[in-house]
Amino acid sequence: MSDNLHNSRFLKACRGEKADATPIWLMRQAGRYMPEYQAVRSKTTFLGLCKTPELACQVTVEAQEKLGVDAAILFADLLPVLEPMGFALDYKEGEGPVIGNPVRVAKDVDRVKLHKPLSTMPFVYDAILLIRRGLKPDIPLIGFAGLPFTLAAYTIEGGSSKHFQHAKTFMLNDEGAWNELLGKLSRVVIDYVNAQIDAGVQAVQLFDSWVGCLGPAEYRRYVLPHTKAVVAGIKSRVPIIHFGVGTATLVDAMHEAGADVMGFDWQTPIGATWKRLGVCAVQGNLDPITLFARREVVLEKAGEVLKDAGGRPGHIFNLGHGILPGTPVDNVRALVNYVHERSVEHI
Amino acid sequence: MSDNLHNSRFLKACRGEKADATPIWLMRQAGRYMPEYQAVRSKTTFLGLCKTPELACQVTVEAQEKLGVDAAILFADLLPVLEPMGFALDYKEGEGPVIGNPVRVAKDVDRVKLHKPLSTMPFVYDAILLIRRGLKPDIPLIGFAGLPFTLAAYTIEGGSSKHFQHAKTFMLNDEGAWNELLGKLSRVVIDYVNAQIDAGVQAVQLFDSWVGCLGPAEYRRYVLPHTKAVVAGIKSRVPIIHFGVGTATLVDAMHEAGADVMGFDWQTPIGATWKRLGVCAVQGNLDPITLFARREVVLEKAGEVLKDAGGRPGHIFNLGHGILPGTPVDNVRALVNYVHERSVEHI
Repeated sequence: MSDNLHNSRFLKACRGEKADATPIWLMRQAGRYMPEYQAVRSKTTFLGLCKTPELACQVTVEAQEKLGVDAAILFADLLPVLEPMGFALDYKEGEGPVIGNPVRVAKDVDRVKLHKPLSTMPFVYDAILLIRRGLKPDIPLIGFAGLPFTLAAYTIEGGSSKHFQHAKTFMLNDEGAWNELLGKLSRVVIDYVNAQIDAGVQAVQLFDSWVGCLGPAEYRRYVLPHTKAVVAGIKSRVPIIHFGVGTATLVDAMHEAGADVMGFDWQTPIGATWKRLGVCAVQGNLDPITLFARREVVLEKAGEVLKDAGGRPGHIFNLGHGILPGTPVDNVRALVNYVHERSVEHI
Repeated sequence: MSDNLHNSRFLKACRGEKADATPIWLMRQAGRYMPEYQAVRSKTTFLGLCKTPELACQVTVEAQEKLGVDAAILFADLLPVLEPMGFALDYKEGEGPVIGNPVRVAKDVDRVKLHKPLSTMPFVYDAILLIRRGLKPDIPLIGFAGLPFTLAAYTIEGGSSKHFQHAKTFMLNDEGAWNELLGKLSRVVIDYVNAQIDAGVQAVQLFDSWVGCLGPAEYRRYVLPHTKAVVAGIKSRVPIIHFGVGTATLVDAMHEAGADVMGFDWQTPIGATWKRLGVCAVQGNLDPITLFARREVVLEKAGEVLKDAGGRPGHIFNLGHGILPGTPVDNVRALVNYVHERSVEHI
């Protein structure tokens, strides 16, 4: 890795080192709220965008440059990794992802195939090569993947869910089949992320987007061993960020999985939780809805996040969840500038 | 109140007193999962059921008797209290409640009317009189109401919501109008609950169903003063249970509102949180999805809840959220029996 990248604000913060300002990037920063994204997206389907390296590169780089954030994140989705495992994935407009052949009984797990993403998903690696060339040399690129619980929940529910009735019932009723499914997902995710690192990302974020539907005891029993295996399979190559929503009572157990950076949602108090976990670095945690408010309110609430983090080296500013469609872009840019300027007072 | 009621398991637990077994009731115990409820519901609309005292009485009493739970809860809904305030409320099949004329700008708050529920909602009080007569003399009846945040969120969103974008943006952008709206809601809710107590309920549960969308700092600033006012307006007449979902990091602030019993969702560890809060009594917190699992799993997980509560006097067993449509009734009955039998080992 070049010195430029190694000494970037973002990677310094990932290592818990002091930087000249608090770095900031935003989950889903290349997304529907942005006209440049919509222009590209109008040319193809969502899955088409994920699978066309030139377009994935364009939205990734444009978002980083337009917002002036301290890292880019690979434009991709959690679910295409499931296609070569034998799942029929479709994105229905306005409905979100749908899996036509979900896992519902134990024997369905037998048909779930292992694969090597480097050969089955070349578009991801091609996109990384293009993005790395397109980004300024001091801007790190973050790769990402879904964690086994969230991927398993998708494969069992067959799409989004409110209560995760199928996934949780499967988990509770047949722990053996559950572990087999999550074991297969873990192996594929490890290969997927390692190949992203080989292709040129400087950090990875592991999303357990839906794990917040579990209580702490269930997390420890049914999820943690698999997440640990994934982290161990990537560990020490690049910083790993571990994030889920609704995880205020899970973060202690999640932290045991071994990631370098813990991402917090907006319900998790940054300062107190950081201290309790003793983790090297933390990421978060402005409520994404704040960006819909008046400019003064956006900056006031951003200031509260900086104050809660207390200028401790290792804070990466982010939202507590992905940026929402309809978010005013000007507020986002104002947020980025504010964090860069004001964090100096806190550091 | 009769000695029978005063010394019931449920009311003893509400006061933190030792009982012969852990009391149990279930949020939404009279609901769609139950064939008896569906038979009654098929004769009328949801709002019709809420407004017909004989039918509301029937589903309330039948559920208590069929399940053998230690308390009945008034069949009603959070939202009819909004109709006399000037909101056009409708329940669309499969969509949930819709408010045709939501509050969206500050001046909309001016048209929100105060009212005296005793005269505007006689059906609620008639139902309580009927239910009290229909229940066995040692079974307490729980009244309930929504808290100002959740009611305000409905009036601003105009229905259910995923991100509460309108409600939170309104809250952040115009704190004065927000406080005016929640102040009006508080006054009506206080009258509504006091009249329920006058009519004959032995306890009340205050639902802040949606408050889990906020972080702790926002809760303290925008919500707690109003919830405090509601609790103060009812306090000391009957035990008050205070509950919301997704509130693991809010319960400390919620507890400051002054309720007698704190209800926990399934992400909130009962034992540790109870100890930290120092509250008299707690209610919860089995994940409702557990009831879809195999019988042995249901009982195993119920046992874990009892173990976490540690037999401490003042534990009221409940789910961590309302019971879901499709829940097998036999599992519910088995759960009730198990809690009655096994809690003795823990007490």
